[in-house]
Amino acid sequence: MLLALATGAEIEAHLERSKTVVIPIGSNEQHGPTGLLGTDWLCPEIIAHEAQKTSDLLITPTFNIGMAQHHLDFPGTIALRPSTFMAAIGDWARSLAHHGFTRLYFLNGHGGNVATIEAAFSEMYAEASFAGRERGFACRLRNWWDLKGVMPLASRLFPTGHGSHATPSEIAVTQWAYPDSIKSANYAPQIAPTGPIREARDFRARYADGRMGSDPGQASPEKGGELVAKAVEGLIADVAAFSAA
Amino acid sequence: MLLALATGAEIEAHLERSKTVVIPIGSNEQHGPTGLLGTDWLCPEIIAHEAQKTSDLLITPTFNIGMAQHHLDFPGTIALRPSTFMAAIGDWARSLAHHGFTRLYFLNGHGGNVATIEAAFSEMYAEASFAGRERGFACRLRNWWDLKGVMPLASRLFPTGHGSHATPSEIAVTQWAYPDSIKSANYAPQIAPTGPIREARDFRARYADGRMGSDPGQASPEKGGELVAKAVEGLIADVAAFSAA
Amino acid sequence: MLLALATGAEIEAHLERSKTVVIPIGSNEQHGPTGLLGTDWLCPEIIAHEAQKTSDLLITPTFNIGMAQHHLDFPGTIALRPSTFMAAIGDWARSLAHHGFTRLYFLNGHGGNVATIEAAFSEMYAEASFAGRERGFACRLRNWWDLKGVMPLASRLFPTGHGSHATPSEIAVTQWAYPDSIKSANYAPQIAPTGPIREARDFRARYADGRMGSDPGQASPEKGGELVAKAVEGLIADVAAFSAA
Amino acid sequence: MLLALATGAEIEAHLERSKTVVIPIGSNEQHGPTGLLGTDWLCPEIIAHEAQKTSDLLITPTFNIGMAQHHLDFPGTIALRPSTFMAAIGDWARSLAHHGFTRLYFLNGHGGNVATIEAAFSEMYAEASFAGRERGFACRLRNWWDLKGVMPLASRLFPTGHGSHATPSEIAVTQWAYPDSIKSANYAPQIAPTGPIREARDFRARYADGRMGSDPGQASPEKGGELVAKAVEGLIADVAAFSAA
Amino acid sequence: MLLALATGAEIEAHLERSKTVVIPIGSNEQHGPTGLLGTDWLCPEIIAHEAQKTSDLLITPTFNIGMAQHHLDFPGTIALRPSTFMAAIGDWARSLAHHGFTRLYFLNGHGGNVATIEAAFSEMYAEASFAGRERGFACRLRNWWDLKGVMPLASRLFPTGHGSHATPSEIAVTQWAYPDSIKSANYAPQIAPTGPIREARDFRARYADGRMGSDPGQASPEKGGELVAKAVEGLIADVAAFSAA
Amino acid sequence: MLLALATGAEIEAHLERSKTVVIPIGSNEQHGPTGLLGTDWLCPEIIAHEAQKTSDLLITPTFNIGMAQHHLDFPGTIALRPSTFMAAIGDWARSLAHHGFTRLYFLNGHGGNVATIEAAFSEMYAEASFAGRERGFACRLRNWWDLKGVMPLASRLFPTGHGSHATPSEIAVTQWAYPDSIKSANYAPQIAPTGPIREARDFRARYADGRMGSDPGQASPEKGGELVAKAVEGLIADVAAFSAA
Repeated sequence: MLLALATGAEIEAHLERSKTVVIPIGSNEQHGPTGLLGTDWLCPEIIAHEAQKTSDLLITPTFNIGMAQHHLDFPGTIALRPSTFMAAIGDWARSLAHHGFTRLYFLNGHGGNVATIEAAFSEMYAEASFAGRERGFACRLRNWWDLKGVMPLASRLFPTGHGSHATPSEIAVTQWAYPDSIKSANYAPQIAPTGPIREARDFRARYADGRMGSDPGQASPEKGGELVAKAVEGLIADVAAFSAA
Repeated sequence: MLLALATGAEIEAHLERSKTVVIPIGSNEQHGPTGLLGTDWLCPEIIAHEAQKTSDLLITPTFNIGMAQHHLDFPGTIALRPSTFMAAIGDWARSLAHHGFTRLYFLNGHGGNVATIEAAFSEMYAEASFAGRERGFACRLRNWWDLKGVMPLASRLFPTGHGSHATPSEIAVTQWAYPDSIKSANYAPQIAPTGPIREARDFRARYADGRMGSDPGQASPEKGGELVAKAVEGLIADVAAFSAA
Repeated sequence: MLLALATGAEIEAHLERSKTVVIPIGSNEQHGPTGLLGTDWLCPEIIAHEAQKTSDLLITPTFNIGMAQHHLDFPGTIALRPSTFMAAIGDWARSLAHHGFTRLYFLNGHGGNVATIEAAFSEMYAEASFAGRERGFACRLRNWWDLKGVMPLASRLFPTGHGSHATPSEIAVTQWAYPDSIKSANYAPQIAPTGPIREARDFRARYADGRMGSDPGQASPEKGGELVAKAVEGLIADVAAFSAA
Repeated sequence: MLLALATGAEIEAHLERSKTVVIPIGSNEQHGPTGLLGTDWLCPEIIAHEAQKTSDLLITPTFNIGMAQHHLDFPGTIALRPSTFMAAIGDWARSLAHHGFTRLYFLNGHGGNVATIEAAFSEMYAEASFAGRERGFACRLRNWWDLKGVMPLASRLFPTGHGSHATPSEIAVTQWAYPDSIKSANYAPQIAPTGPIREARDFRARYADGRMGSDPGQASPEKGGELVAKAVEGLIADVAAFSAA
Repeated sequence: MLLALATGAEIEAHLERSKTVVIPIGSNEQHGPTGLLGTDWLCPEIIAHEAQKTSDLLITPTFNIGMAQHHLDFPGTIALRPSTFMAAIGDWARSLAHHGFTRLYFLNGHGGNVATIEAAFSEMYAEASFAGRERGFACRLRNWWDLKGVMPLASRLFPTGHGSHATPSEIAVTQWAYPDSIKSANYAPQIAPTGPIREARDFRARYADGRMGSDPGQASPEKGGELVAKAVEGLIADVAAFSAA
Repeated sequence: MLLALATGAEIEAHLERSKTVVIPIGSNEQHGPTGLLGTDWLCPEIIAHEAQKTSDLLITPTFNIGMAQHHLDFPGTIALRPSTFMAAIGDWARSLAHHGFTRLYFLNGHGGNVATIEAAFSEMYAEASFAGRERGFACRLRNWWDLKGVMPLASRLFPTGHGSHATPSEIAVTQWAYPDSIKSANYAPQIAPTGPIREARDFRARYADGRMGSDPGQASPEKGGELVAKAVEGLIADVAAFSAA
């Protein structure tokens, strides 16, 4: 069920069945010459929306802006400072906890979000610890590519040039879902360089067209469909395990 | 153009033509027995997405969580504290300004957001004022129902029982866009009570089923379509005026 | 009763009779060639102090600095950033609530304060909502010119050139209370221009002498006295209604 | 000159003569059975307003709420948390610095404010230090009772029972300025106990009627007048020295 | 060189040779029945201090309190909330950058710190990115057990029961450095359970004696000495590589 | 007992005997041509560690970075902004209070810390006061040179040229504890100038070699030993008095 397309009463009923909620979370940032700016929030949204068609998952609206400071020198990127990001995650979580949800599962689409989301969880836990609050509430972060079976499939589909930003995997997933928005370009070099992530000037100097280690030219909607199917399967199982933990 | 479905290069090109960007902004909160939780962010998103089909508007992803603290005792509501909301709006705006946008147009779908969004603008302007920054950057907030022609149409469509929360106007707009998610219920009373807005307990005590002054039973997808059409027209004109100001 | 000229015991006794307290709130900012820098906090202070002479209103010290960032390029203006302003309003309110006051009535003298004060209220309500606090505590914001009868009187006294900043109304009120501080100047143009409010540089560029839409030359102490009398009447009635709500 | 009763142009002219401004700062808090709640902000205001009658001092509006958390269990006290207080002092100071003032002289009326005001200065200096800003801007804090000659006079007027809160000195100053608000009560014991300052519960338990070490019964308007005269003299000299430093 | 035992002039001279500085960072938290509360800050301190004896590394004082909220229900733990931790890391880093250091190497001793330290780096980079600052400044986080050769050695020394908290590795390192503080106890079970980390109540319920997955009984000062030697070697090489990057 | 070299169980046992804990707190900042950068945190650490050898004092790790913004233009200084410093002190204190400590004794080594530490205490007390928390928790700040007998001894050892920064007293204490790190230099002038403390540029302009009013050339390890012995005696007595208060 998509929370945004439900009524409050339907959520109240869902809470009778389950205390778990899935929050797709990502980032809106440049993804190289052909990747969509929305890639990192579209991927978890696509997977989560697909998963709820065949399961009783409850999916919140997508948290679509994340920790993308290093991409700020490419137009279209929208970034939250980590402190802002943490405050917002905290308010989302406190709202959901207020309703009785005790298992918040964040399905993440952006590697750059990981540290800050984990720090946001710690901030909430710290609040509980200092207050001596009872146990029972838990958050989990899962990158969609870490769902069971996804990386093996990606490695099979893209044995070289997968990289870590503007990967053919994520581009393929958006191509599958948004076939009208498939872009093309020449890549030079075919596989982008790799290196560290620092601030925006440094990033643009190192990664001239925005990609990191990837050759997105290998993406196709069909491969995207395969990845989505695998991720959906993994998500449903992983959420079930988390709900039971 | 939808920013999320564009590449960084396409945004760079857009900036050659226009320094204006439209940010749909709303809230995810209970909307009575039949309104969708997403109503307040779906409405500006629907209108903005529709508008960019026939104009050169650039639409960012939707800012989908807002100042909804008073609805927190109804399940499904997700609320940002005003301080968090302001920090996040600030980071969105600073990101867009970083790219060279000088006109940020926030198309709002939630009355409860207005004060906080305006305060967020003032916070940004204050930053500029203390720093002695050059003039040239501007933000504008517009509620979609305040676009030219929309309220007259709403008054004609719903001469009584329009109210201010879970209004037949906003319900109709979502019905038009999401016909598969149309809900039904009996309303008792047919027109909900009105009164002040305070904290969540008080709100639920005053407005038992979550509506304020409205009779959403009057909504229909057709009326929603009329409202969207009128709003699209108003939006295109209003953004043009703002860009020129 | 003026809280600052009372003892703690006198406030304790007042709380037996009433849980309502009035907080004059304004701003210290340029008011054109002849307006006093204190105009926006002096006006609500003047009205509130006058009102407590003939009623049982309890008036706190005046909150004399507000959201005046746009006036910063005119000397003498003192401005709080919205985030600071909200924190301070919150601490005032929490202090008063700590004593048992449940109705905080903010009598405001500055239009630029409105959004931030409302956001500050929402921040406090959000704190209560997240904590699941009982209902019963309420804040109200009222601009003194929105008190019953004041604007009709102002329109009658100043049919043209009232404007929105450095208005003849507010200048007249301060002239009535501070006759030794009446200033004079030539206005060019007689009625100031109008337009949007952004940051300080933009404001000074648009409004060269600091006025917005007004002709303060029409002010007189007598007219000020009439306005004060009308506002006092409106205030006493409005506070009574709020206390009973 | 009182800044609040001046126009922006008058402040502009003052800046030609002097870059110094005096900010009366205090607290609104219980002052025992007979002391006014406003005592700690009224005293510096009284002295500063008096001083500007015979000198070219520029006096801002009074910062009337301070660090009074320990008095919160006595009705009428309004307290800012230190973090809020510091933010507000910072905004006042940044506003005044924006206009070109380089010497901010805070005339303080509340011992409990000292640490926080000094911390606020350090916060501003730290901002300058991290930014590598040029030297030239300075803040000074002076308690009015530390002005030259004041404590010797107080010791002579009140050889015993001066104490540190609700002192006969400060009560006398307000009696001189507000003769219509002189209160009376029996004190038991005549001289209040002394001890540490912690949080509000502890304070009320230790200091049942709110005084610390004082016998305010010794106050009189005449003694207040003597103290004001001495303080005015000291203030004018001290500000001159600071301006020249 | 230990920065704390040097003069400012010696640091000035060091900056002529190198722009790199090493910051030992850890946590002060319970480490099971026999581990020292300081284990997580002592380990990086021990290794860094040892390393500077035979190399030109500059070592700051140890950042000895970290993100330890989950250990708060065990006495002696001192924890910073992530937001506080980030602010403090930021101020340390800004101070060092102010002197001209461009490579800040954080040698970490606590797994629970990782996300927050990385988020703190992002916060600083974001500040630089929004400001459009030049590239050239970089932070690196390295856990001492991730230094080259350390985990292989640990696996050889402790093939089972290494675990993740109160590990025999870290206990051994402190035993080597503080032989007078070696403690003993019976462990039941010999190897502690594993599981997730949430807030303090949950942690103490899951991990009754505070260990996670470890058997610290295998530690010895000699093994500690071996680990330190290996870590020192790895540290010197890793810092050299970072300085050159 | 040194908390960092104890186990959680040992702290639990200590809490049976005493609810008091001593926190050495200082700063890491330039101390003139010959003073160690760590002087201000080393001194309280040295004294506290020495004291616990002959008494039942419990000593936490040293809070080694403080309010040192004015020294930032001398390399090696690491400074926390007051707001950061207060947040960190608050988290230390809340952690210790969580374990049941009710008397937190901060032994301070840096005059520049005083205002901010006191403000941090007030921030915590304010939290308690607004929440209506029970009395019983207390913090105390003591500069080591204000311990009984220390200043008289210092005045005898250094009748002139003691000064307030890089004093012969503090240098002597570090010389006694770190005889291998004794530095020498010519001082010109022999006794440094005195004056106000503002931001870093101003500080370096006024105090070219970093000293304030001092002649550190008079320090010797022997004098340091005398000072430590006197301070240890004073500390044990002062903590006992605080615990009993």
